[in-house]
Amino acid sequence: MKRNRFGFFGAAAGGAIFDIVRREGPISRAQLGRTTALSKSTISLHVDRLLKVGVIKEEARQTDSGPGRRSLLRFATDRGIVVGIELGVTSIDVAVCDLEASVLASYSETLDIAQGPVPVLTRAYEIIEQLLTDVGHDPDADRPMPTLAGIGIGLPGPVNRTLGCVVSPPIMPGWDRYPVRDEVATHFDVPCFVDNDVNVMALGEARAGSARDSESSLFVKIGTGIGAGLVIDGELYRGFKGSAGDIGHIGIDGERTLCSCGNRGCLEVVAGGAGIARRGRELADSGASPMLAEAAARLADESPPREISAVEVGLAASQGDTAALELVIESGRHVGSVLAKLVNFFNPQMVILGGGTVNIGDAFVAAIREMVIRRSTQLATVDLVIRRSAFGEQSGMVGAALMVVDEVFSTRAVTAMVREFDG
Amino acid sequence: MKRNRFGFFGAAAGGAIFDIVRREGPISRAQLGRTTALSKSTISLHVDRLLKVGVIKEEARQTDSGPGRRSLLRFATDRGIVVGIELGVTSIDVAVCDLEASVLASYSETLDIAQGPVPVLTRAYEIIEQLLTDVGHDPDADRPMPTLAGIGIGLPGPVNRTLGCVVSPPIMPGWDRYPVRDEVATHFDVPCFVDNDVNVMALGEARAGSARDSESSLFVKIGTGIGAGLVIDGELYRGFKGSAGDIGHIGIDGERTLCSCGNRGCLEVVAGGAGIARRGRELADSGASPMLAEAAARLADESPPREISAVEVGLAASQGDTAALELVIESGRHVGSVLAKLVNFFNPQMVILGGGTVNIGDAFVAAIREMVIRRSTQLATVDLVIRRSAFGEQSGMVGAALMVVDEVFSTRAVTAMVREFDG
Repeated sequence: MKRNRFGFFGAAAGGAIFDIVRREGPISRAQLGRTTALSKSTISLHVDRLLKVGVIKEEARQTDSGPGRRSLLRFATDRGIVVGIELGVTSIDVAVCDLEASVLASYSETLDIAQGPVPVLTRAYEIIEQLLTDVGHDPDADRPMPTLAGIGIGLPGPVNRTLGCVVSPPIMPGWDRYPVRDEVATHFDVPCFVDNDVNVMALGEARAGSARDSESSLFVKIGTGIGAGLVIDGELYRGFKGSAGDIGHIGIDGERTLCSCGNRGCLEVVAGGAGIARRGRELADSGASPMLAEAAARLADESPPREISAVEVGLAASQGDTAALELVIESGRHVGSVLAKLVNFFNPQMVILGGGTVNIGDAFVAAIREMVIRRSTQLATVDLVIRRSAFGEQSGMVGAALMVVDEVFSTRAVTAMVREFDG
Repeated sequence: MKRNRFGFFGAAAGGAIFDIVRREGPISRAQLGRTTALSKSTISLHVDRLLKVGVIKEEARQTDSGPGRRSLLRFATDRGIVVGIELGVTSIDVAVCDLEASVLASYSETLDIAQGPVPVLTRAYEIIEQLLTDVGHDPDADRPMPTLAGIGIGLPGPVNRTLGCVVSPPIMPGWDRYPVRDEVATHFDVPCFVDNDVNVMALGEARAGSARDSESSLFVKIGTGIGAGLVIDGELYRGFKGSAGDIGHIGIDGERTLCSCGNRGCLEVVAGGAGIARRGRELADSGASPMLAEAAARLADESPPREISAVEVGLAASQGDTAALELVIESGRHVGSVLAKLVNFFNPQMVILGGGTVNIGDAFVAAIREMVIRRSTQLATVDLVIRRSAFGEQSGMVGAALMVVDEVFSTRAVTAMVREFDG
């Protein structure tokens, strides 16, 4: 997260003015003048160029009083479209969005990522092409409109953004170092950007979802595994090696279950969806939970036979099965105990809980919240909002789309567009 | 940590150019042109103004080849002086620094903060005045040179920076809401800035000390209590309510000792200096540690009688007392176990360990390091540097001085200076 302190001079002023229009618009020329302390004529010069390049638009507004019609400038969000993809372990969500990440069309289906990259990407291409057709994009046209500006993908594993692929993913057979970004970019002949799923979800929540008005937020995804994304002032904080937010392998003192990472008692092996399912099966086998024993027998008879998942544990808990309820509460408390430590340390304005396992029951979320409030300092919790994601599976697709817009319309990129246009 | 994305236009360009000169200088006009993409004449205009205002200097350099003498621009660090103060629980450190926080003169003495603000500040005034005289500052001169630009103070308690005071400090009787900042500013008729001691130390370490070349760092102070400061790209991250880094009250699972905050098993009550001392006294009383029992008897006979502190525990551990050594290692592991979680979450480039208790023995630091490496993910630790502060008590004074320079010579402030000069 290097800050470009010095990029806003001279030739780069066009890019910087675009940035203001994108983030603060609709905005008048007069407001731009006040924000930037630039002269009227300099503002005009840059605005005219940006209008010609087509990245901003001017629209009339009717004022109630004063000298009648005035115009406002805004990001030309209909100038192009972007595709945002959230690839889960067992699902794919694809959205075509305009440039402010409003969803124009979307599609979701179950898809097993363990099939490997070629079949999964082949299916993704079909979905993307269908959605593009739906919104009127014709790639065979001379000058296809609306322009596809880029594709963003959230992947359920550790992503090396420089290489554009996942590296040593624990649950994605065949994907290790497969060049996802370059494959997709080549296939559609547009820029492609990849990041891990939790980061794109955190970005989506922070910029378009539950944390839209928060200066700092912590997004926690509790699914099969557990991960988090940190957003400060609308930007992801990724850490020195890009591993910030890897909370799934934070150790819980006193827990000894072996985790796939080689350590014991990691948060996700104890309290993630897979951990809850495993312990639910133990309750079924031992007979401690009559409801889960019954569910296990029923699922074993299905074709193909299934095993108890966190969903069944949550269901049993909500129907009064004491052992299942205790498991749900204990798991929530483990998550809450770790989050309490992180809230003390990071002091975010908002904590958003997402991922499928959050939905196993109110008791789970209540236990998380209770532990955070009980075990964080008063100052850190007095105005803290802990909220279940209201944005749901949208957050990943929209976050992936926002990642594309941030890159393709960065200050630097727009400056280059203006230069190229002039040259 | 709101970023001023838009402050670098037009009239504000002077402030922004100053910022580049301060952070990247010495720098030539040509390099400034390349960095900012501004024309030669625009650079000249702004540089000339900054030279006239006196915040930058031009100095000749002899080049080996080329057209002979060229000049470089640099921050006029001798244009003024700043005072940085680190107020500890039992000590005061005061430094007079130039504007790049090089120490011109400093003085330290023991001082009990529990005396209350009036006697402590009265003593601080005497020390400051003596040091200012030492460096040739004469406040009675018509135009005192060198100019005292401001005073910064690190305080050992929770600081409300808006009010300029400590709020509900656990160990500073009489200081609650006492207007430290305004008192000091009025007394010397210069700007004063306050922050908590761990934040100013973290800033000093990140900008002038051990973490000078790290993009993100975590400074951990282990003294009587335990606290941390987070620095990202040279700036403190303070969190939503300013409580980021409050790690002393992170709970250690399974520990039940009552902490002053009302919770049980907080990190600092278990493994801080006071905690180690308390448990050392238990080892002395029970006879489990012969050396500590002996030390306790010896200290009780002193006049005035003293009790075992963390220092005696460390000494006994280093001299082969098994019980004391176990206590030191166990305390280090508790600290390391918490830091491992935070390293997973924050993924810093460097962790710096400071504060008096870090010096109780190599075994303590080794235990911290061992737990961080063992219990963090490989990616987060592969290039992580964990280092004892090499900057020592300087970090607080220098950090407090840097805080002043950052405020008094901010982009915004220098822009205002240029405007005022022109007007």
